[in-house]
Amino acid sequence: METKQTDIKLKNPVRCIVKLGGAAITCKNDFEKINEGNLVTVSSQLRETMMSGSSSGSVLEMDWSKRPGISEPSVTVDAFKDQQVLDYNSFVVIHGAGSFGHFQASKSGVHKGGLNQPLVKAGFVATRISVTSLNLEIVRALAREGIPSVAMSPFSCGWSTRERNIASADVATVVDALDSGFVPVLHGDAVLDESLGCTILSGDLIISHLASHLKPQFVVFLTDVFGVYDRPPSEPNAILLREIAVREDGSWFVVKPTFDKKVEISVASHDTTGGMVTKISEAAMIAKLGIDVYIVKAATEHSLMALSGKLRDKIPEDWLGTVIRYVS
Amino acid sequence: METKQTDIKLKNPVRCIVKLGGAAITCKNDFEKINEGNLVTVSSQLRETMMSGSSSGSVLEMDWSKRPGISEPSVTVDAFKDQQVLDYNSFVVIHGAGSFGHFQASKSGVHKGGLNQPLVKAGFVATRISVTSLNLEIVRALAREGIPSVAMSPFSCGWSTRERNIASADVATVVDALDSGFVPVLHGDAVLDESLGCTILSGDLIISHLASHLKPQFVVFLTDVFGVYDRPPSEPNAILLREIAVREDGSWFVVKPTFDKKVEISVASHDTTGGMVTKISEAAMIAKLGIDVYIVKAATEHSLMALSGKLRDKIPEDWLGTVIRYVS
Repeated sequence: METKQTDIKLKNPVRCIVKLGGAAITCKNDFEKINEGNLVTVSSQLRETMMSGSSSGSVLEMDWSKRPGISEPSVTVDAFKDQQVLDYNSFVVIHGAGSFGHFQASKSGVHKGGLNQPLVKAGFVATRISVTSLNLEIVRALAREGIPSVAMSPFSCGWSTRERNIASADVATVVDALDSGFVPVLHGDAVLDESLGCTILSGDLIISHLASHLKPQFVVFLTDVFGVYDRPPSEPNAILLREIAVREDGSWFVVKPTFDKKVEISVASHDTTGGMVTKISEAAMIAKLGIDVYIVKAATEHSLMALSGKLRDKIPEDWLGTVIRYVS
Repeated sequence: METKQTDIKLKNPVRCIVKLGGAAITCKNDFEKINEGNLVTVSSQLRETMMSGSSSGSVLEMDWSKRPGISEPSVTVDAFKDQQVLDYNSFVVIHGAGSFGHFQASKSGVHKGGLNQPLVKAGFVATRISVTSLNLEIVRALAREGIPSVAMSPFSCGWSTRERNIASADVATVVDALDSGFVPVLHGDAVLDESLGCTILSGDLIISHLASHLKPQFVVFLTDVFGVYDRPPSEPNAILLREIAVREDGSWFVVKPTFDKKVEISVASHDTTGGMVTKISEAAMIAKLGIDVYIVKAATEHSLMALSGKLRDKIPEDWLGTVIRYVS
């Protein structure tokens, strides 16, 4: 695997890599529609947990672009004049596609490769337009909360794959952005694949790769259910898996609650990048590095708790979510 | 100067690097407003000149995202089924900011650096939001014409500067995109600067850098006037400079028409990246490499002529524009 910089030295350690699940921030069954309510709450929780410890006052908006119905920029430059430099925890944000990109990718079969076919090539372009338009809206939502977010689209950053595994990743540019005090915002993307021509690089694979290089203190997956269940969460008797332990060899078992039977895993059929099985496997890879992974419902008190990092000390009894941890 | 790949080998030579001037594709005095009419015509002319020589039939749209007032995607996948792979000329597109980004950059002084100041940091984020939103719209306009356009935002591609000169540029990713049959779309951007912290990297500097590495057959600057004039083009007696010759040492002189007096150059005061002086200097740098540069009014018969490459053989008497060429 090739990265531009093998020996990574960060000015400040990365506190958290957070995944905004496509299902949590978009309306799943509504083509290219953002779940505005969730996105605003998620952005606000990210601000609160990033800025914790700093004596920040008002929110200083960093999105000065035109808003619907308003023709002039609304920024008050004077508000920044007396502002102290804020100390904040280093975060990296990665988001999924949800109702953006999946239609374009599945109609054209971008994940299967074959850029010499006009349909695949068009689908590649169309997929990137869709996911980058979602990326822009997420960067804007974060910036409106005063988070210094910068878009880093994997394809254009030179991320590529070989047989769908990451072959090249530009971690150095992510590090430069972090060292300059920015919050990089990456996303699942259509990328070039050395053997297939092209494919879809999922947000989960990106997280796994960045986690192994940036060594964050913890990783949070924000999703649209309370965590990982023993069967599809829509089923009446679905049980939330509260704690999963990962062994040295990457295999995993449920610690809490205790079961006798085999665990079924929910896989949404429309998810071209794999569903919960991929998620647990990827999470297990991260946990193996000694990094706690929390899978939690977005825009709840439970996600706020996970993002705060307090779960590293103690998991409260009333906390709802799935913790995935390494056991030696 | 550091580039990821010093010895560049392209599958197909680059025919043209084209700059879409900010003034040509946006409404200068209207905050963050695209000149839709010009953008559509420019995109259509680019399609025509890229596809010349191929027996292309209907336009196969590559923007399958939601359009205003329409909730469903409108793509007809069947249309791609019998489509032959199109041969086309390799183009790279770079665009300016116009009424996007300039407000944010000048309010915060991003070009002067100082990322430790909250206002500059916020301005950096705000500038990038504005220019990347323009970039997305340009990529979409090109894709609607069937051009396989892919966004490559310089900051996220790892472009950075030292004292405002390019220190690092990811040309290899541009080459990979070209070799895979895509049309990279770059833009002037806020970037990290090793000495200043940050600055604005102009589209013209990007073109100059890419031209020296990719060696295109010719370069076209699309602007909102007919070319370079001897004085501000708004003045009644302004004379269009039809041909400028560049010497080995980078100095230049007007060949056509013939003058006795010193040439005045128009510099728009709102242009944070420099106006015509920068443009001629950058164009002269390119011409020195033996690459013809055409500065021409966007969305006219003259721009179509320039983009077609026919000017390399002969400049017709009725062609309006400025040619900048090397003389040995």
